[in-house]
Amino acid sequence: MTDEARLAIHQVTFLRHWSFRESVEGLARHGVRKTAVWRPKLQEIGVAEGARVLRDHGMEVTGLSVGGLVTSPDARDWQSAVDDTRKVIEEAAMVGADHVVMLSGGLVDGSKDVQGARDRALEGIAQVLPDARQAGVKLGIEPLHPMLCEKRAVLCTMGQANDWCDFLGDDQTVGIVVDTYAVWWDPSLQAEIKRAGPRICALHVNDWLSDTRDLRLDRGMMGDGVIDIPSIRSAVEGAGYRGPCEVEIFSERDWWQRDPDEVIRIIKDRFRTWV
Amino acid sequence: MTDEARLAIHQVTFLRHWSFRESVEGLARHGVRKTAVWRPKLQEIGVAEGARVLRDHGMEVTGLSVGGLVTSPDARDWQSAVDDTRKVIEEAAMVGADHVVMLSGGLVDGSKDVQGARDRALEGIAQVLPDARQAGVKLGIEPLHPMLCEKRAVLCTMGQANDWCDFLGDDQTVGIVVDTYAVWWDPSLQAEIKRAGPRICALHVNDWLSDTRDLRLDRGMMGDGVIDIPSIRSAVEGAGYRGPCEVEIFSERDWWQRDPDEVIRIIKDRFRTWV
Repeated sequence: MTDEARLAIHQVTFLRHWSFRESVEGLARHGVRKTAVWRPKLQEIGVAEGARVLRDHGMEVTGLSVGGLVTSPDARDWQSAVDDTRKVIEEAAMVGADHVVMLSGGLVDGSKDVQGARDRALEGIAQVLPDARQAGVKLGIEPLHPMLCEKRAVLCTMGQANDWCDFLGDDQTVGIVVDTYAVWWDPSLQAEIKRAGPRICALHVNDWLSDTRDLRLDRGMMGDGVIDIPSIRSAVEGAGYRGPCEVEIFSERDWWQRDPDEVIRIIKDRFRTWV
Repeated sequence: MTDEARLAIHQVTFLRHWSFRESVEGLARHGVRKTAVWRPKLQEIGVAEGARVLRDHGMEVTGLSVGGLVTSPDARDWQSAVDDTRKVIEEAAMVGADHVVMLSGGLVDGSKDVQGARDRALEGIAQVLPDARQAGVKLGIEPLHPMLCEKRAVLCTMGQANDWCDFLGDDQTVGIVVDTYAVWWDPSLQAEIKRAGPRICALHVNDWLSDTRDLRLDRGMMGDGVIDIPSIRSAVEGAGYRGPCEVEIFSERDWWQRDPDEVIRIIKDRFRTWV
């Protein structure tokens, strides 16, 4: 496999301009045959039709984003998030995704109880684990950057992800999604990547901009920021990972505003130099 | 000592409205006799005069902010930051500060070499350690929130701060500044506070706002955000810390705009309920 064949692009990177179908067609037109699916776009087209479009274009599906968000202290809300994650697992199986990207969820309604949120998230993942095993879909738990602890993910570090995997005790079904943006700052990164080893089920690449203006939607294109992406990729591959390198850029001010065909051309160029 | 006597307020909290002298007079007027000094304000009034104003108002000085920022890959720039930190140590001794707040510094000029920056920061601190010992001033190394890794501090966690203290090997001179804003998200927090024990030389309190709009200058007043401050304070005190609780709020959009007398009244009120 050439290195370019390792390139995957998450369809959320074209959030503002392309529908589900347009993103699959667009990627195929540029010779990119790996993608990740953004659930709101899949719901727009419908799961059966979305699966057909992916199949018709010979598209390999990495992850389906997102499942989880199971931190609510309200028992009914928590259960409804668990049930919804079961649906995401089914959908992932229908589109042939390797894994569901599992976000723990953040703090809900101004709660100050991080530990409680962590306990509930872990319990929520444990609840859906048998469903994932049954469906043959991995649960890719993804630590996000600690600045999103309140908003999206009380799972904040690779070390914590490894601890959760230890606790869940099923490395065939539970994997870890490594996102350069989320982990680059972590002084324990190299050690925890080594510890994760075959647990790593995805590598997301994008960059940290010096003038970051938004906590969630201001990620940069590889090469435009300060992350030493090749060193993280090399550590992840040193730990045994051989899967796709997936570009995933949440960028309200820049990349979401651009013509997606241009974005793909730039990604392919940057991938050669900066990943 | 009543609990309110533990209250310290950093003069940077009044950055936009009060000079050095006004902040000392203002705090004294409200019966707050502990403060931290913001070096640019000290430089405005002059160190000798600043020391006199503090002494005249019976003010106990916790920290002088900031020394360090010793990450430059340019040897001359690095040396000049080390030399400047020596000056900060002298100034801290002159104003009777307990410690210099030491920020490691971030990445410089788009460098992607976090590990190199960390090595240089640690070497810079080692360089000034004898000066601090000689001057009888502690070096309070402060991990900042990981979202400031690029901009201000490649020292990102309590665990890393403990590792640095282990390496530096002089717990009499090198301490750790715990800031609730920087550490609240950390899954290893309780363990690393315990590990730090008597190394902890300061506790900064302020809050994480749900609608955080800026990485550096949008901190919240205690009670307005999601940090469980009492649990962090309790862990820090469980580890042996008996010093001041220092309110330090960088807030361009809100608290820096308000009348400082009002800010102090609110701080005293919130301190009783939320710290």
